[in-house]
Amino acid sequence: MSLWMKKAMRGAMMLPLAGMAGLAAHAQDASAVSAYVDSSYLFLIGGLIVMFMAAGFLCLESGLVRSKNASMQSLKNVALFSVAGLMFWLIGYNIAYPASTALGGIIGIPGAIPWSGEESLDTGYAASSDWFFQMVFVATAASIVSGTVAERVKLWSFLIFVVFLTAFIYPTVVSWEWGGGYLDSEWGFSDFAGSTLVHSTGGWAALVGAIIIGPRAGKYFGEKVNPMPGSNIPLAALGTFILWFGWFGFNGASQLAAGTFDDINAVAKIFANTNMAAVGGVLAAMILTAVLYKGKVDPTMAFNGAIGGLVSITAEPLAPTMGGAVAIGAVGGVLVVLTVPLLDKLKIDDVVGAIPAHLVCGIWGTLIVAASYGNAFMPPAADAVGAIGVSYVGQLVGIVLTGVVVSALSAIVWMVLKVTLGVRVSEEDEQLGLDRADTGVEAYPEFAS
Amino acid sequence: MSLWMKKAMRGAMMLPLAGMAGLAAHAQDASAVSAYVDSSYLFLIGGLIVMFMAAGFLCLESGLVRSKNASMQSLKNVALFSVAGLMFWLIGYNIAYPASTALGGIIGIPGAIPWSGEESLDTGYAASSDWFFQMVFVATAASIVSGTVAERVKLWSFLIFVVFLTAFIYPTVVSWEWGGGYLDSEWGFSDFAGSTLVHSTGGWAALVGAIIIGPRAGKYFGEKVNPMPGSNIPLAALGTFILWFGWFGFNGASQLAAGTFDDINAVAKIFANTNMAAVGGVLAAMILTAVLYKGKVDPTMAFNGAIGGLVSITAEPLAPTMGGAVAIGAVGGVLVVLTVPLLDKLKIDDVVGAIPAHLVCGIWGTLIVAASYGNAFMPPAADAVGAIGVSYVGQLVGIVLTGVVVSALSAIVWMVLKVTLGVRVSEEDEQLGLDRADTGVEAYPEFAS
Amino acid sequence: MSLWMKKAMRGAMMLPLAGMAGLAAHAQDASAVSAYVDSSYLFLIGGLIVMFMAAGFLCLESGLVRSKNASMQSLKNVALFSVAGLMFWLIGYNIAYPASTALGGIIGIPGAIPWSGEESLDTGYAASSDWFFQMVFVATAASIVSGTVAERVKLWSFLIFVVFLTAFIYPTVVSWEWGGGYLDSEWGFSDFAGSTLVHSTGGWAALVGAIIIGPRAGKYFGEKVNPMPGSNIPLAALGTFILWFGWFGFNGASQLAAGTFDDINAVAKIFANTNMAAVGGVLAAMILTAVLYKGKVDPTMAFNGAIGGLVSITAEPLAPTMGGAVAIGAVGGVLVVLTVPLLDKLKIDDVVGAIPAHLVCGIWGTLIVAASYGNAFMPPAADAVGAIGVSYVGQLVGIVLTGVVVSALSAIVWMVLKVTLGVRVSEEDEQLGLDRADTGVEAYPEFAS
Repeated sequence: MSLWMKKAMRGAMMLPLAGMAGLAAHAQDASAVSAYVDSSYLFLIGGLIVMFMAAGFLCLESGLVRSKNASMQSLKNVALFSVAGLMFWLIGYNIAYPASTALGGIIGIPGAIPWSGEESLDTGYAASSDWFFQMVFVATAASIVSGTVAERVKLWSFLIFVVFLTAFIYPTVVSWEWGGGYLDSEWGFSDFAGSTLVHSTGGWAALVGAIIIGPRAGKYFGEKVNPMPGSNIPLAALGTFILWFGWFGFNGASQLAAGTFDDINAVAKIFANTNMAAVGGVLAAMILTAVLYKGKVDPTMAFNGAIGGLVSITAEPLAPTMGGAVAIGAVGGVLVVLTVPLLDKLKIDDVVGAIPAHLVCGIWGTLIVAASYGNAFMPPAADAVGAIGVSYVGQLVGIVLTGVVVSALSAIVWMVLKVTLGVRVSEEDEQLGLDRADTGVEAYPEFAS
Repeated sequence: MSLWMKKAMRGAMMLPLAGMAGLAAHAQDASAVSAYVDSSYLFLIGGLIVMFMAAGFLCLESGLVRSKNASMQSLKNVALFSVAGLMFWLIGYNIAYPASTALGGIIGIPGAIPWSGEESLDTGYAASSDWFFQMVFVATAASIVSGTVAERVKLWSFLIFVVFLTAFIYPTVVSWEWGGGYLDSEWGFSDFAGSTLVHSTGGWAALVGAIIIGPRAGKYFGEKVNPMPGSNIPLAALGTFILWFGWFGFNGASQLAAGTFDDINAVAKIFANTNMAAVGGVLAAMILTAVLYKGKVDPTMAFNGAIGGLVSITAEPLAPTMGGAVAIGAVGGVLVVLTVPLLDKLKIDDVVGAIPAHLVCGIWGTLIVAASYGNAFMPPAADAVGAIGVSYVGQLVGIVLTGVVVSALSAIVWMVLKVTLGVRVSEEDEQLGLDRADTGVEAYPEFAS
Repeated sequence: MSLWMKKAMRGAMMLPLAGMAGLAAHAQDASAVSAYVDSSYLFLIGGLIVMFMAAGFLCLESGLVRSKNASMQSLKNVALFSVAGLMFWLIGYNIAYPASTALGGIIGIPGAIPWSGEESLDTGYAASSDWFFQMVFVATAASIVSGTVAERVKLWSFLIFVVFLTAFIYPTVVSWEWGGGYLDSEWGFSDFAGSTLVHSTGGWAALVGAIIIGPRAGKYFGEKVNPMPGSNIPLAALGTFILWFGWFGFNGASQLAAGTFDDINAVAKIFANTNMAAVGGVLAAMILTAVLYKGKVDPTMAFNGAIGGLVSITAEPLAPTMGGAVAIGAVGGVLVVLTVPLLDKLKIDDVVGAIPAHLVCGIWGTLIVAASYGNAFMPPAADAVGAIGVSYVGQLVGIVLTGVVVSALSAIVWMVLKVTLGVRVSEEDEQLGLDRADTGVEAYPEFAS
């Protein structure tokens, strides 16, 4: 079920029942207020935990770039979170949850711009709490891009890309599903907390960016891949744990309610499954790297294994058993380990490994949702009350549509930037490092050789 | 409305209504307990989130000092949080929320020392939860000082200053407003979560300290300013995000209640506005530095822009629209960028930029509160029920009184320390670095040149 | 009272009272659901906060090892958290909370394997929320070991040890007390949040490991101790604050309920006391090191003082006054400062100081619980309703039994590993550093000399 449907249902349950009076009406109100408070509180706490993922991406990405670009990478992460917040307020939210739609739900028509919260008991939660919770998700998508295109992208061009990603591209994708649009109504597409909507969207934008911007100077010589090791592995490890921490908010609060027996059980199960998927991702990545690389275990593979496992469970963290969650996450970890060298073969330079973890595992996690439901291999069909069931076909349509549209729109934005402002720094600046060239502030002025 | 008034009102609403009996009384009790639990829970969760700001200051300050002093700066941050907790328990809390007052509310007369929590349903919240929430605010004020006077202040002299700041100076200022004293009752001064009470108080104490202690050796040569870049920018960036994260607790939980339709809407709006002010601060600081410094964007300006924006919205995070919050934060970001070089002109050596972010933006944020209310340019006057309205005059009185009293008391403490223990380390030790001189433990023994 | 008893009591209170019907039954249900939601929510939020301690241990340990092993130490911390989660799901939880017991409660007989949550209103909380909350505690125990045996233990041997620790050793100890077994039923042993069960268990396993694995090459020359300073003190400081933050969840949520007047007051008091114990630990450690070491204050002693204070209050964070909490924590800080050189005298190489902070302070904190109760020096006796009172004798029995059994089982596992896979890396690899030898990824490839 989509976010939009859940919200609509909760809203409906909160409408005062006409014809009831006196005590009953008051009890109804008290119960509605209580549920309203609980849901809003969940959005705020959940959103706060997800907001902290911005710090996780900061640590992960600053730790995995070379020291001459770490100051710039820190700046970009703070800046992108700011741009995402601004644009999702000005434009994005109204497109993601549109006033109306065109082209059968493909295009969301925004209502009043900029978004303004109007609080009503009927909605079931404080409007600002919902905005806050949604905003931190769009920031996550933007963070994914920043890691892939690090060490050579121009600061302002990158931020302008983030403007388009967070104002138009991501919100359009979200409108198809959580906004109740095309994928939700026509295909029964199911993506609980955003394996596709958030992580693959960020991943496609990153992939197209990496291709258009090109690899870092000196990364590929013919068939040879020149390793450019990250400058601060403990910082990257801290970032991994911060992301892991934040994911409990990401998945847990996406249940959208925690005030009933069923809801709190669901949130609890989501916590357990989210953790187990990360566990599976870490251990599978560690074992596989040990096997592939003569016993050596690359920590960055373990970190990306955790993230890959978390992305994999995000599309459906509730339905699987805990063993299923381990397995889903483990496949994610394997995909990370196998995809990282594959990208290098294709000479696609993904500095932090965001494409394997977010895009590839996002696809995997979204597909496997169908296995949790009956009739999985059947084409999508409406059930007795008109809801479309989850199927591999429906999931695949969502994955492909997202991939095609996000890639196309991202390519347009990146290409326009390329021929106007330019998307990458000069060779001299890249050689010197973005810190000295563009910020004037070195990340570690006393350490770096 | 002051914290004190809010508390009194909530307490009053919780008093069992005389004359009601049986079921009604039980319902009353159940409702009072429920509100008591909710408020206490909010204080604990909010306080916990604010407590984590101590880690944010640690990262920011340790990242912005040179590596030879980073171990000492880490130690100071852990130590000051400890001293603040101890003194606010022994003395501070009882002065901030005094048993009685003298001199028309200027001087708070503490009750029992040390503070002991006595739990009563009538207060509306668990006494210890309130103490915890208040304690993490005083620690914030102390952290501000530590950043400004870094790299040359003596450890124990600094900690003794923190003793006085957290036991007497900060609590006195707080008593005027949140304690229901002079500024609240006479001037209608309004400072929701502490732009003046917390941030300017820390800022004034830091400013006076910086002047009395003097700049770091070699910082100023005639008109020339010798840059002393921070040693670990990614760590400072992480500190910025941790502070940003903590600010949701700082401002959000300062609503003091979240259990009703109006309260949760307020908390949600505060979350959204708090974020937007930081966004405004970051982007304004980035754009202005790019303009002023030939396209180069100093990350530390962006970080302090975030903090400046957050400080600016702290005095009134609820009343502004989201656009207003962006604007208030953006002005904060501009003030940071303009004030940092101004301090250098005045040869006031503020190592981490705490005075621009906390003092200057604290003044700005407190003043602009008046714009959110009617009659803003009128002198303060009592309304029909005797409450004093918010006005520029009243806000200015609070700003000036805080500045004069905190500066004077801080100057006395710093001067007494200067002529007794001394406030700064020897030239040799400063040259060598505080880490080797005073801790015997280098921050990065294997890296630093 | 043990966790088990608290749970049983809460479960009992939630059973629908037979013979009540209609409205009363519905009210009963509503109240039971509300308590169920509150408790589950507390477990999830508390567990999440404790989960973040994994990041704290990561920072502390990665910061306190030499840079040539920091990448490996980061990897170990991510890996151990994964192994702990996997094993506590597969085996550990069912032993800790056994279906039945043998040998008078010494051996827990697990029920269905692997653990699967079955949600029932009668239990009083969501099964998965309890599992999650318990799981993050076992991970803490494993983190303690990882710090002590750092810089020379083999990765896979360490992880296999963690398998046994988290699947069998820790769960057996927990079953004696929180599982309602031998120590709880026979001795009135009381350990609120795990000074012994979690911290000493980890500490004993670490101590035995350090002895069997032996000290780092070059650490001890005859009577001479070769200092091997940590490579990143600010990171260790951040780890300390993260642990401090996490401890509010560790102790606070161990109240297990927060929905009543008494419970929320207890949680609030636990927050205040937990903070004050850390305060006492920091300040005592700082003052004592200044006295012992000619005015120099070792930051790592202050950090371990905080942790020592926190461990000391963990066995009973509710009963002491705030002054008592300061004193209990201060003794912990003193014990840390005195025990660190003692271990070096014994040539037991504890890289991060985990044995003083977790084992020694765990013993101290557990013993002093008896002082908070009457008849403390009497042998344990049953009260009117058959509960065994808390006594020094009972506490000592718990401490000794835990020490003997954990040490013996740990010794067996470490010895078997030693004679099979081997427990330490080759001399060459140790010299080279584990990062280059075993991970192929240096922690700071551009910085280290």
